[in-house]
Amino acid sequence: MKRDRLKHQLPGITNKIVATYGHCQVPLHHLDPTALPSRQNVVQIIEILQEVIFPGYFGKKGLDSHSIKYHVGDSLETAYELLVVEIYRGIRHSCQLSQNVCESICAHCEEIAETQTIKFLEKIPDLRHAMATDVRAAYEGDPASRGYDEVIFSYPCIFAIMVFRLAHELHLQGIPLLPRMMTEFAHSKTGIDIHPGATIGNYFFIDHGTGVVIGETTEIGDNVKLYQGVTLGALSFPRDETGRVIRGKKRHPTIEDEVVIYAGATVLGGDTVIGKGSVVGGNVWLTHSLPPRSKVLISEPQLVVDTLPGKEAGVRTSAVPN
Amino acid sequence: MKRDRLKHQLPGITNKIVATYGHCQVPLHHLDPTALPSRQNVVQIIEILQEVIFPGYFGKKGLDSHSIKYHVGDSLETAYELLVVEIYRGIRHSCQLSQNVCESICAHCEEIAETQTIKFLEKIPDLRHAMATDVRAAYEGDPASRGYDEVIFSYPCIFAIMVFRLAHELHLQGIPLLPRMMTEFAHSKTGIDIHPGATIGNYFFIDHGTGVVIGETTEIGDNVKLYQGVTLGALSFPRDETGRVIRGKKRHPTIEDEVVIYAGATVLGGDTVIGKGSVVGGNVWLTHSLPPRSKVLISEPQLVVDTLPGKEAGVRTSAVPN
Amino acid sequence: MKRDRLKHQLPGITNKIVATYGHCQVPLHHLDPTALPSRQNVVQIIEILQEVIFPGYFGKKGLDSHSIKYHVGDSLETAYELLVVEIYRGIRHSCQLSQNVCESICAHCEEIAETQTIKFLEKIPDLRHAMATDVRAAYEGDPASRGYDEVIFSYPCIFAIMVFRLAHELHLQGIPLLPRMMTEFAHSKTGIDIHPGATIGNYFFIDHGTGVVIGETTEIGDNVKLYQGVTLGALSFPRDETGRVIRGKKRHPTIEDEVVIYAGATVLGGDTVIGKGSVVGGNVWLTHSLPPRSKVLISEPQLVVDTLPGKEAGVRTSAVPN
Repeated sequence: MKRDRLKHQLPGITNKIVATYGHCQVPLHHLDPTALPSRQNVVQIIEILQEVIFPGYFGKKGLDSHSIKYHVGDSLETAYELLVVEIYRGIRHSCQLSQNVCESICAHCEEIAETQTIKFLEKIPDLRHAMATDVRAAYEGDPASRGYDEVIFSYPCIFAIMVFRLAHELHLQGIPLLPRMMTEFAHSKTGIDIHPGATIGNYFFIDHGTGVVIGETTEIGDNVKLYQGVTLGALSFPRDETGRVIRGKKRHPTIEDEVVIYAGATVLGGDTVIGKGSVVGGNVWLTHSLPPRSKVLISEPQLVVDTLPGKEAGVRTSAVPN
Repeated sequence: MKRDRLKHQLPGITNKIVATYGHCQVPLHHLDPTALPSRQNVVQIIEILQEVIFPGYFGKKGLDSHSIKYHVGDSLETAYELLVVEIYRGIRHSCQLSQNVCESICAHCEEIAETQTIKFLEKIPDLRHAMATDVRAAYEGDPASRGYDEVIFSYPCIFAIMVFRLAHELHLQGIPLLPRMMTEFAHSKTGIDIHPGATIGNYFFIDHGTGVVIGETTEIGDNVKLYQGVTLGALSFPRDETGRVIRGKKRHPTIEDEVVIYAGATVLGGDTVIGKGSVVGGNVWLTHSLPPRSKVLISEPQLVVDTLPGKEAGVRTSAVPN
Repeated sequence: MKRDRLKHQLPGITNKIVATYGHCQVPLHHLDPTALPSRQNVVQIIEILQEVIFPGYFGKKGLDSHSIKYHVGDSLETAYELLVVEIYRGIRHSCQLSQNVCESICAHCEEIAETQTIKFLEKIPDLRHAMATDVRAAYEGDPASRGYDEVIFSYPCIFAIMVFRLAHELHLQGIPLLPRMMTEFAHSKTGIDIHPGATIGNYFFIDHGTGVVIGETTEIGDNVKLYQGVTLGALSFPRDETGRVIRGKKRHPTIEDEVVIYAGATVLGGDTVIGKGSVVGGNVWLTHSLPPRSKVLISEPQLVVDTLPGKEAGVRTSAVPN
């Protein structure tokens, strides 16, 4: 099949597209020799650190207590190389945006990138400790789980929480772009959307997870358990007189220790505090605080029950195996 | 570990499987020298076009205003090659299905594929314009967003809407199979399910996005904002006397300009029109129209509030860090 | 950009990390020459079997009724090789865990792995039969669907149900780890979370799918149709006196033939039976049984309707295209 008939039209189209670069209020292009962070590298960083945090489960097989040290050493060196570049790109880009005073080399950004990378890697032992509590909470909180191995291999919340805990540290260090790129990668894989700015304690478990949203200024204690479709969100957000949203205020709730929130429940507002040990039932819609040990259920909504003739169920009851 | 012990049984199993090809009412196989579209190529097309629409953000780094032209030219050529093949495969397949009159070469299908590919690529400048309005709407609509860069890199709605806008053009051109393959790829990545047949205006923003469903015949105006878990769906669909669904009628709602629909709300029915500037609250279930500037909230459902002793919260309060 | 300035600190960090391996209550590491299953291989197995079940749609193109036999033979051989290794790894690992009596070769595990692999592959013809009924149910149940091709290529439920049906067979054979790794891969791709332990009949269709959860002990008949966000879950689960959950009891509902459950509905409890031909409306919350042919709708919740001035819709109505 020859396909050159219309190729001569491509240069014209190219010109029309290139003509759209550079003169719109919202630039969708970054035409500059100084590169932006690479999503591909950010994903690779996550995969390397997952292997460092769960050695033997992900990545290289058959490691023993002798070989592991060299393997982790290698992995960290690769992670270091990648992190310095991506953090550098992020810092440099936002320093240009904010001040436009960086000269084209920005040696200072580079130093910061190295220092921030080391600072970040030094946190991994504590992150492993926190992840161990999350794995345990998942195993103990789910009757279907067969063991820690299954939890580590399969449970989407373990991946989402690991990525969140990593991204949160970079967020605390003030690294731009990377934290959100990381958590959105986990969101894409798991359906669990945790903003890197949230604060989350130990023994955190999210069952199933799809549709969970945890907003930027949420605070979550220890031993908290969420089910699929739970939203910890903003009730509304203030706007300035021009109608632009005001950023950075606490807009999301506080969930104290040992709270369980069942599937589809929505808890909204920066002043909303769910007291220690409370249980929030499925589909509950909460915009105010609860004292400790509260149990809130939606009053079983009135159901309208009818009896049907066979057909209306919307399936062809005549369907026969083929 | 030698593993040949039972290999001799594989040919027998192969025969049993091959015997199931070709004689069921629903063929799960396509055994024909004329290939069907390739999902892998469809994904590659999306990635190339994403790089053309957001140059410097995705794909090649360090492009400047001189090199970009050549780079885009190359990308378009690759996209052209892939699109002609995949569009050809789609057209040819459905033309065989519908008429069974194509002779085995179908030169006509090939010409159509080239013409349709050019027609599609010519729309990219307008698509970039629309995407710029979507990026702006996301930045302005989300207090957590740090800037346009973060929106372009991280926001799932930007990817889902871009893929939808591309797929919608192919849908309008009547290309079979590809549009849905494209939007379902975005659905898989983002949890946002937009049918390529929907009509969507500028400045469209979906926050978080997981669980959003926008049906085939939905019409959405400008400046519309949706949150996670919103369904714009069919109330029911007519069936013919044999019980088969009747296809193609308007079954999904119309959402006018400047409407906001909060998390988990469901709006159903082809005759349902949400008037300009309206606000639909979280979890609202709507099957009828609203006049412009309506604000609809679910009456806060009665909650049953109890006080618990410590244990029942379903967490081991005795849990201690290990 | 030279990046060696801080590299000398990496060995120290490595030591700190390695020091955290091996002495926590929840081991996050598997430092043992006998490897655990590989998620990468599990994904590859799924892709090969998808190609065997839907030849011509996925994987190799242009197969005809002559070449297909050799191609399937090759694919099965590869699948066999991979399955024997992964099943072996799973069996061996759990046999070590449970009994600590396997000697370091565990020839017995290897034999079991081969036998189980053959037993599993022999089920593929029946699985194709079941998948054909699911594809037909999807086409007949969705007015937006253009044909069987589109269903097979694009519909997330087809992938999720195929992976479930494969994983369920391994689950029935008692293979550890793999079944859940498989279904969680499908969950990640589709947002549909089906536990491999569930029992599901023919003609099963899930429309859109994101957020669907089907628990371990759920039983589903023939001709059942679910929409996005449906949960078939546990009402609560018994704990022993130490507060640990008791595993393995029936905790999830039974859905009889020809039931339709609309978006966002929740059906909970191991004693809950939804009778044949029933319809459960959107957002319904059910914790008790329904007789056959029931139709349950949530009584349309009272809505509070206001009229707004223009601004509050949370969008900048002044926004103009740029």
